[in-house]
Amino acid sequence: MALIKKPVTGMKDIMPDEMRIRDYVTELVRETYCSFGFQKIETPIVEHIENLCSKNGGENEKLIFKILKRGEKLDIGNAVNEDDLADSGLRYDLTLPLARYYSNHSNELPNPFKALQIGSVFRADRPQKGRFRQFTQCDIDILGDPCFLAETELILATTTLLGKLDFKGFTVRINDRRILKAMAAHAGFDEDQYDNVFIILDKMDKIGLSGVESELIEAGYDKQAVSSYIGLFSDIKDDIGAIRQIGDTLSKELEGSVADDLITIIDSVNTTKSIDFRISFDPTLVRGMSYYTGTIFEISMDEFGSSVAGGGRYDEMIGKFTGVNTPACGFSIGFERIITILMDRGFKIPENNEKRVFLIEKGMDCKRICDIMKEAADLRSKGISVLICQMNKNKKFQKTRLIQDGYDECCIKDFYCTEFKK
Amino acid sequence: MALIKKPVTGMKDIMPDEMRIRDYVTELVRETYCSFGFQKIETPIVEHIENLCSKNGGENEKLIFKILKRGEKLDIGNAVNEDDLADSGLRYDLTLPLARYYSNHSNELPNPFKALQIGSVFRADRPQKGRFRQFTQCDIDILGDPCFLAETELILATTTLLGKLDFKGFTVRINDRRILKAMAAHAGFDEDQYDNVFIILDKMDKIGLSGVESELIEAGYDKQAVSSYIGLFSDIKDDIGAIRQIGDTLSKELEGSVADDLITIIDSVNTTKSIDFRISFDPTLVRGMSYYTGTIFEISMDEFGSSVAGGGRYDEMIGKFTGVNTPACGFSIGFERIITILMDRGFKIPENNEKRVFLIEKGMDCKRICDIMKEAADLRSKGISVLICQMNKNKKFQKTRLIQDGYDECCIKDFYCTEFKK
Repeated sequence: MALIKKPVTGMKDIMPDEMRIRDYVTELVRETYCSFGFQKIETPIVEHIENLCSKNGGENEKLIFKILKRGEKLDIGNAVNEDDLADSGLRYDLTLPLARYYSNHSNELPNPFKALQIGSVFRADRPQKGRFRQFTQCDIDILGDPCFLAETELILATTTLLGKLDFKGFTVRINDRRILKAMAAHAGFDEDQYDNVFIILDKMDKIGLSGVESELIEAGYDKQAVSSYIGLFSDIKDDIGAIRQIGDTLSKELEGSVADDLITIIDSVNTTKSIDFRISFDPTLVRGMSYYTGTIFEISMDEFGSSVAGGGRYDEMIGKFTGVNTPACGFSIGFERIITILMDRGFKIPENNEKRVFLIEKGMDCKRICDIMKEAADLRSKGISVLICQMNKNKKFQKTRLIQDGYDECCIKDFYCTEFKK
Repeated sequence: MALIKKPVTGMKDIMPDEMRIRDYVTELVRETYCSFGFQKIETPIVEHIENLCSKNGGENEKLIFKILKRGEKLDIGNAVNEDDLADSGLRYDLTLPLARYYSNHSNELPNPFKALQIGSVFRADRPQKGRFRQFTQCDIDILGDPCFLAETELILATTTLLGKLDFKGFTVRINDRRILKAMAAHAGFDEDQYDNVFIILDKMDKIGLSGVESELIEAGYDKQAVSSYIGLFSDIKDDIGAIRQIGDTLSKELEGSVADDLITIIDSVNTTKSIDFRISFDPTLVRGMSYYTGTIFEISMDEFGSSVAGGGRYDEMIGKFTGVNTPACGFSIGFERIITILMDRGFKIPENNEKRVFLIEKGMDCKRICDIMKEAADLRSKGISVLICQMNKNKKFQKTRLIQDGYDECCIKDFYCTEFKK
């Protein structure tokens, strides 16, 4: 078989320039979230097929890279479908493995447990520009805390991180799946219609309220329900008053404290935030995943069309492993999107140590090279980075390239011609 | 299907305590190797099956996790063997993907290119204590440099790193695959016998020279060849003189400069090293992988039985992708082994920022909690980590646990009872 130079379809080789930015962001994420008391953990990249296909992954379950059974367990002759061939697969997100991890280890972990995960996930999506089949996710989750403190800390931690990356003018949009459902119930939709209604509502950003109305009617829903539903949205504003108002309107459909709890979260974020951003109630916010049970939130930025972070409360997922529901709330930043934005901005990493290059001529004698290496060792022990390399034939091109790589021209020393030419 | 709490067989969940050590070592690796001019890169975790099965992986090729084809490409009914079912697999090392990466990108990369990779690799090995099916490898490689500078820099960088981890009393053992082969040729073995002879020689550490002799005879090799072979080892010492002597003895079998080049590497390491370790010629060093073409080296430590790092020159692997051989030399530290040693030592990470805990009582009113969060935000902006969490019922247990997690008792503030009880 011929060897193949390109990476597998839809996955990418990461070049040094991008890698430096990724490492810088990863370290900033770790430092920032750990300052909020989050603790980093890792789960295996390979997960049981039973867990991956447990209806906690929504559409992602159609995109699983499945792993072939091995040894005696693999019986190709008698295999009828994929279930006969695969016993595991690559994780498509970090939330499901976290629920498994917490179920397995909760008695070794603090309560509540504040988890930070940064890791690769895999989706066999149709390859398209800027979208890869292996990509990094970066999630924080608070497990075991039912109260507003969880949401508020998640929002503060995430916005603090974005602020450190010099992201400005962003808005945290917040809603609650229970409000979303109560509004649909109030309008007169049946429970089995909710998911489709929400898929149409989710297009509000693009098609506006009247667009949503037409699509709902086109989809064949009861006209009176649609009209009542649209009416609920038309006079809502994104402030605390709007939540009170909607709480009153939905007094029959909504559990007692949902509206008040949402107000508490917004108030506490506004009171305690240390950088400038807006948090606003958005009754049209849907968030795709069906596992959400309460608050849902997203961060959108004027500079960039779609969202840069999203999350919510999923109090029932851990219970599927343990039989006992556990409060759980998470916030995921769009790591790849953030890297793309920084690259597009021409982001320069604040370098905190000097970088020098010692260029040596081919055929230089060993003793001289050793002298240069000794000098390099001395500089490195003082925290200065030193690259020793042989001069290329095209010295000018090599220097241009080194300058592109972030070396200062005056730190590129040509040893054959200068200090060491004795 | 029931959900499964435990990770898949042979893979592990990483707990916060271990994760902190792993992150600390990862960052130290990055910082140290970058100070030698290495640049970090990443390749996908998934690799073409054609590349994985190209006989560059030795025994590891038997341990590949293969990934099922998807969509129309998967034809279960007509599948006869694994090749019909899998189009890719999980990488079992970082060297083969690096060769592919370099082949694909060499014109965008500096020459020589100094690569650093830290990443997960996968081997479907029989599960056993301390050995996992997903584990981290950490490799540095210099591509495009044929001269001793590559070996010397790899050895200096790796030993500098081990020194920073407070590893002492280690020895770099070095040999050359060409000397290994020349010795076998000189003794009279046939070329097709080399691999098996080397497998027996590799046991020298455990069974001694006489043990090697008996095993070679048992294996049915020509007695005169065995006797001549053992004779070659019996009067070799691990110093420069020994290399000269062996160079003279093998003058017919060995290319001109191999012995001299090895002396140059040892001399230059001894001249330029900035921490205390030994480098010694070891003609019994084999290194398993068949892709090595020149120097091979390993670091062993008195404190720990087996090796903590290994590497060598593999000048022919990139040529299999490009048709043009490219000098290549790499050194891999045993990342998992190092983590295990540090954990066993009870290694404490030098914490460079203060960590405080604010414990709040359940049911505390929102305004008070917001005051605490504001204080936390202020401290966090000054670089202090602050964990805010609700008091557990068993306060004493919770505090013991927090102290275990590295918090200082006097930094654990019980807010209901102290400052905020107004």
